[in-house]
Amino acid sequence: MKKIGIVTSGGDAPGMNAAIRALVRLSAWNNIETIGFLRGWEGIIKNNFINLDARAVSGILHLGGTILKTTRCLEFKTKEGLEKAAENLRSNNLDGLVVIGGDGSIRGAYELSRLTDVKIVALPASIDNDVYPSDETIGFDTAVNSALTEINKIRDTAISHERTFIVEVMGRKRGFLAVEVGLTAGAEVILVPEVEYDEDAVVEAIRKNARKGKNSSIIVIAEGVGKTTSLAEAIEKNVGVEVRVSVLGYVQRGGSPTARSRYLASIFAAKAIELLLDGKGGATIGIQKGQVTSTSLDESCRNEKPLNLELLRLAEKLAV
Amino acid sequence: MKKIGIVTSGGDAPGMNAAIRALVRLSAWNNIETIGFLRGWEGIIKNNFINLDARAVSGILHLGGTILKTTRCLEFKTKEGLEKAAENLRSNNLDGLVVIGGDGSIRGAYELSRLTDVKIVALPASIDNDVYPSDETIGFDTAVNSALTEINKIRDTAISHERTFIVEVMGRKRGFLAVEVGLTAGAEVILVPEVEYDEDAVVEAIRKNARKGKNSSIIVIAEGVGKTTSLAEAIEKNVGVEVRVSVLGYVQRGGSPTARSRYLASIFAAKAIELLLDGKGGATIGIQKGQVTSTSLDESCRNEKPLNLELLRLAEKLAV
Amino acid sequence: MKKIGIVTSGGDAPGMNAAIRALVRLSAWNNIETIGFLRGWEGIIKNNFINLDARAVSGILHLGGTILKTTRCLEFKTKEGLEKAAENLRSNNLDGLVVIGGDGSIRGAYELSRLTDVKIVALPASIDNDVYPSDETIGFDTAVNSALTEINKIRDTAISHERTFIVEVMGRKRGFLAVEVGLTAGAEVILVPEVEYDEDAVVEAIRKNARKGKNSSIIVIAEGVGKTTSLAEAIEKNVGVEVRVSVLGYVQRGGSPTARSRYLASIFAAKAIELLLDGKGGATIGIQKGQVTSTSLDESCRNEKPLNLELLRLAEKLAV
Amino acid sequence: MKKIGIVTSGGDAPGMNAAIRALVRLSAWNNIETIGFLRGWEGIIKNNFINLDARAVSGILHLGGTILKTTRCLEFKTKEGLEKAAENLRSNNLDGLVVIGGDGSIRGAYELSRLTDVKIVALPASIDNDVYPSDETIGFDTAVNSALTEINKIRDTAISHERTFIVEVMGRKRGFLAVEVGLTAGAEVILVPEVEYDEDAVVEAIRKNARKGKNSSIIVIAEGVGKTTSLAEAIEKNVGVEVRVSVLGYVQRGGSPTARSRYLASIFAAKAIELLLDGKGGATIGIQKGQVTSTSLDESCRNEKPLNLELLRLAEKLAV
Repeated sequence: MKKIGIVTSGGDAPGMNAAIRALVRLSAWNNIETIGFLRGWEGIIKNNFINLDARAVSGILHLGGTILKTTRCLEFKTKEGLEKAAENLRSNNLDGLVVIGGDGSIRGAYELSRLTDVKIVALPASIDNDVYPSDETIGFDTAVNSALTEINKIRDTAISHERTFIVEVMGRKRGFLAVEVGLTAGAEVILVPEVEYDEDAVVEAIRKNARKGKNSSIIVIAEGVGKTTSLAEAIEKNVGVEVRVSVLGYVQRGGSPTARSRYLASIFAAKAIELLLDGKGGATIGIQKGQVTSTSLDESCRNEKPLNLELLRLAEKLAV
Repeated sequence: MKKIGIVTSGGDAPGMNAAIRALVRLSAWNNIETIGFLRGWEGIIKNNFINLDARAVSGILHLGGTILKTTRCLEFKTKEGLEKAAENLRSNNLDGLVVIGGDGSIRGAYELSRLTDVKIVALPASIDNDVYPSDETIGFDTAVNSALTEINKIRDTAISHERTFIVEVMGRKRGFLAVEVGLTAGAEVILVPEVEYDEDAVVEAIRKNARKGKNSSIIVIAEGVGKTTSLAEAIEKNVGVEVRVSVLGYVQRGGSPTARSRYLASIFAAKAIELLLDGKGGATIGIQKGQVTSTSLDESCRNEKPLNLELLRLAEKLAV
Repeated sequence: MKKIGIVTSGGDAPGMNAAIRALVRLSAWNNIETIGFLRGWEGIIKNNFINLDARAVSGILHLGGTILKTTRCLEFKTKEGLEKAAENLRSNNLDGLVVIGGDGSIRGAYELSRLTDVKIVALPASIDNDVYPSDETIGFDTAVNSALTEINKIRDTAISHERTFIVEVMGRKRGFLAVEVGLTAGAEVILVPEVEYDEDAVVEAIRKNARKGKNSSIIVIAEGVGKTTSLAEAIEKNVGVEVRVSVLGYVQRGGSPTARSRYLASIFAAKAIELLLDGKGGATIGIQKGQVTSTSLDESCRNEKPLNLELLRLAEKLAV
Repeated sequence: MKKIGIVTSGGDAPGMNAAIRALVRLSAWNNIETIGFLRGWEGIIKNNFINLDARAVSGILHLGGTILKTTRCLEFKTKEGLEKAAENLRSNNLDGLVVIGGDGSIRGAYELSRLTDVKIVALPASIDNDVYPSDETIGFDTAVNSALTEINKIRDTAISHERTFIVEVMGRKRGFLAVEVGLTAGAEVILVPEVEYDEDAVVEAIRKNARKGKNSSIIVIAEGVGKTTSLAEAIEKNVGVEVRVSVLGYVQRGGSPTARSRYLASIFAAKAIELLLDGKGGATIGIQKGQVTSTSLDESCRNEKPLNLELLRLAEKLAV
């Protein structure tokens, strides 16, 4: 293992820079040269990269986003794109490639791994937390805490105006972010795509709260549910309370990574470099039951990570 | 001056509780009894209030929102509503009433003052900063800083994805919040209702940025402009860059008040109590050129506070 | 299980209120009555308590500290004190007692459990993270993130003045906080009580940094090492760089709990209530390898939790 | 005016980078070339500088500290040092020099201005807020808010343990920071160097609080008072309550500047460039009664800014 490439792909997540720093510094420690491709897969296809040494990653640990930039790349989804990318890995004499990204990036890493001997390892980094089989992704904890901070502020207005707020959080098609945010923010109702949507039940829950004298409620809804506006109307009409909608948006993606996001970035990077030094690739790193694990890219792509519905039930009991 | 009432009205603003605390404690210091009407004007009309003594306002200085609650009250806009309110001021033997709120609340205070001998003083508290003639309202500085924190996070994604972000801030019909946020966040473009909207100029500015190699831009737009979505489409279509919209929303209303919002609450409250002790009323408190001032409610209602366009020009030069 | 008591003891930790809320609400869900003893063990000895129902714990989830107060109680260390406490558990007809606290509190819970049939369960809550065998305590993640925020600010001055900063963090006799903070803050040197103190090695590390052109360094030192001042002098004298000391202090104890501290509070409380409903006691709750576990109070007291020295080595490699 | 130099000197303050950015961009707008001397006066004496253009100051607006670095420079206090500095201003063909710093830096600017024809303008930037005659310095508002955030956290522990906390804030020989922090944090006692220290009065105030049932108090003390430890002992001994000391330290210096610190940096810079374009120098910029003003360096050095004792009295009344 003499030289490896690093790429960040898909949506940015807080802690990606912490992962880049850790990969570069651990490589330097093991006398491995590192380059960073710019703008995700596009950088590999266009052979657009920068050299990264230990000093080049100074002062980035606490920064949100990714210094390597990231973009959507349609060309990478074509056979030609993938082949050009595989060729550029070879032309740069790379022995390994570390891909930092979410669900889609790992799928891309898998596709690319089928066309090259270069060892490819994926580090799950995504605010959606939807990478199988890792219990957690880099950036997820930061996004949860960012959303929590926002909801704390929204609750001030909710209580002062005795309103119900519907807070829409990110998470694409999954409800990981919504469950964690809802549970820890003390949301009265949590709605996720993994559970069938039942408008009547939500209306009934808010009505019950009102009867109990709880004049303000917070409903956390995952963007994947897709019912935010119609739910607001249904509650206003049927319960007769004032409802406001707040879409948290891109605020959840940015910001300085929390300790936990930095910690995961560090131990995931250490495992990636360990695998590469052992001459292994084709793997997704993860954390399962507190241990850092490695799973084949293939298995990681083929499976869908289950949502812990137990937490939803716990959240419901805690919000009585 | 033996007994005064306090009411918070209109949209909540961070620092309202700091103002309530200061009013109650300064009253106690001067042997004035205080009661707090609940839910804005509605509380006066329905004679719904709580007794407030020095201990009752412990531990609220740092809280967002208002412990007295606030609501929109249509009844108060009727002659009957106003008369009932005036009667309840009398029936509670109040010598004074302090109204904490924004533009609309001061208008309400003025209407009420015409029907009663009770001395009425208004403290400007609003994230919109639209109360004449005060240079600043309680809560404005907090809202600016909240928006700034959000934009810092959004910029992480903007830079990583090399996107243009349109960030919509509050401010109702005015651009005070947008100017202050835009200037201090280093926004490339700031759009306010007070300046005629020129889509072509904005498109051209973003195009120029792109040519200069600035791949990510932040546009801060006041909600009062009302062009957020169409602007996003125009830029995407004409400049060919990715554009994302982020509506900051209720996050700007809540949160622990900044030092400055608490400071204004304290010195405004001191002036209000001073006026009432002098047997004066019918006044809006404010800060002008660093001095606490008092203006007649009438004058405060009849005038519109001008926006400092000089700051817009400065912001433009700083964002080159 | 008809009635249980709750007590917070020892140093306060962010998330204690989240645990109280969860215990009360889950008890209510299972028709268990709850009371809260005030000021730690002292409250049990003096039979000083308040009734807690689901509404009584509204609005406390996000608060630091503990609404039940906490204090050091010398009397509890005497035979008489323990017996009085045991008697009061009986006199209140308690079936169970949940103790929320750190290392010392769990020792106290164990002592008390030997004198009573009341089922006692301990929830580890401490910023020191020193409770065996749980991988993490309620409050630890918040303290780490608080320290991180401080160090981010200190680094501004460190870089601007090209100084070395020695940052002393809490942790009493252990280095858990120092390791996690040092790793995630990118500290150049981390010093913990579990590793023999070698002043020369630290001086040499700072000298090497200076030679490499790293003009500012952060040293994170656990309070348990006890060498903060002498180290500062040694570096100034031997390397000739400016050194400043910053003792983070009580800031690490307070503040709104992070999502993770609230999450642990919730799942620990759920396990405690589950145990009590099963008629079990004499247990310390914990999280090990991602699973909630229960260990006998006896075993929890007799063992010392090991520090993961692997993380120290990783931190060293990352700070090159 | 063709070319100007910029230097940051003395202790760093949040917003210095905002000032540098504004100076460079407004210079570029007026076709003035800018260079930045490194490490304060030392950089001028050693002729150590970097070229600054509009792009060079991208992405620094939100950063604490100063990208130009700063240091103490004993040589500058000698005649030789000053003459060398004056010579280097000439040798670089500078028409103007903007000095960003506090009290001591303005004194240095004055000394230097007596030896050169280069127009020198000083921008007050200091967390101590001790520059005559400006009502406020760049960085002060940020330091106040940072201290406030810390005290919010400390209050959690103060309340939970029913302790009295003595919180020492910065400010060197002056009490500006202590007064503003104490007033807005709701401190029970505020101690500043400008008011004679009366230990008995403080002890009596805490005793009175205890009698009223206020079991936790916050005392804010300016570092310039110098009695922190002895006061803690006096209260413990005479009132019999637990006292803890927290020295806030360097955390107050760093961090991203608040909106207000950025705003002052922007309007101060605009005034400085305006003066220089008019061929004027020898001035300290400031804000007085809400207006940006300019005062001769001489007058700025010879006078001491008075502390508003009225605010102290207001704080006392509010903390009953």
